[in-house]
Amino acid sequence: MRKRKIPQVVVERMAVYLRILNEMDTDEPDRYISSQDLGDLAGVGAAQVRKDLALFGEFGKQGVGYQVRLLQDELKRIMNVDRPINVGIIGVGELGTALARYNLRRSADDKAYPFRMAALFDNNPAKTGRRVESLEIFSAEEVVDKVKEYRIKLMMITVPASAAQTATDLSIKAGIKAILNFAPVKLIVPPQVKLLQSDVSLQLHHLAFYL
Amino acid sequence: MRKRKIPQVVVERMAVYLRILNEMDTDEPDRYISSQDLGDLAGVGAAQVRKDLALFGEFGKQGVGYQVRLLQDELKRIMNVDRPINVGIIGVGELGTALARYNLRRSADDKAYPFRMAALFDNNPAKTGRRVESLEIFSAEEVVDKVKEYRIKLMMITVPASAAQTATDLSIKAGIKAILNFAPVKLIVPPQVKLLQSDVSLQLHHLAFYL
Repeated sequence: MRKRKIPQVVVERMAVYLRILNEMDTDEPDRYISSQDLGDLAGVGAAQVRKDLALFGEFGKQGVGYQVRLLQDELKRIMNVDRPINVGIIGVGELGTALARYNLRRSADDKAYPFRMAALFDNNPAKTGRRVESLEIFSAEEVVDKVKEYRIKLMMITVPASAAQTATDLSIKAGIKAILNFAPVKLIVPPQVKLLQSDVSLQLHHLAFYL
Repeated sequence: MRKRKIPQVVVERMAVYLRILNEMDTDEPDRYISSQDLGDLAGVGAAQVRKDLALFGEFGKQGVGYQVRLLQDELKRIMNVDRPINVGIIGVGELGTALARYNLRRSADDKAYPFRMAALFDNNPAKTGRRVESLEIFSAEEVVDKVKEYRIKLMMITVPASAAQTATDLSIKAGIKAILNFAPVKLIVPPQVKLLQSDVSLQLHHLAFYL
């Protein structure tokens, strides 16, 4: 399976399916869920669920559905969250600090939460050397070294728009392959790097439709 | 057209189409875009673009495409962002403060940005009466009164998970019909209220797929 060939909307739905299964978290070996029920919870049709999952393998049984625990394990493996993933943040302003704390709290509350905050970065010398809870803040110049040292695989960018491309270029130079950008600006990344934009303005537009 | 009958994924794509048109922002009356080009920019097929837009009216011309300025105006009208929308935030922690500042900055930078920060709310007496830039912080008890006074139509919830349902219930009591929730908890809302969940964990899961 070539990951890049899977449409982004399918990957988004896979993440939603996994969240639903995680919320059902069960050790009962005989708990099953139908594609209809999984679809209802995810807001898509049963046929879409079957089509999405079929891209990755044969997980269900005709007339019985999917074994919850088994499908959960398979989706974790497919989504690469069957192991901890170290995360960094460049930009320790209010948003960066809030995201760091959020992830620390999630990790503490839920042992199965795969994303581990590893280090923070900021180009303001007044911030470097300080900490957000247990997390050290390093300078932007240290990104390449610390990404390697802390085995950071995923970077969140929470710097102002004007600094976001520089922060992105540094992350890529450090070997980062997946970036979540919160700065309201379009970033340029090479094809081997996956970039997602976290855009509150898009969600506000979406909501405004219903007013 | 019954808004509730439009699938959520279509509304999400409409918001993306509008963002693309806003980024092309033009006064040239003869600038057109094909469904193919709009689809390429939005990451969907040309047929999907035509199907989505056809739900709302006839905007394109066979063989010519859509007039950019006209389609932009129509989408603004459909998405209710052809007028300013007043926004409130309950929970003035790091995330709430970051979001308030972000929206103030967007409004200042872009006169066409429709979302206007109107007021903030927090149940911590040490915060009420203070300000985030120009925005006053009111107590949670004042939500109902101030939502009416400031004509707030859209509420962002940035309180801890344990306080999110109370903040939501207060917003609904105040007449709010659209809520963007950042607390990592499932909220219960009546059918006439539209709730979106802003979930960084879902985006991290999505990104992890590509590692």
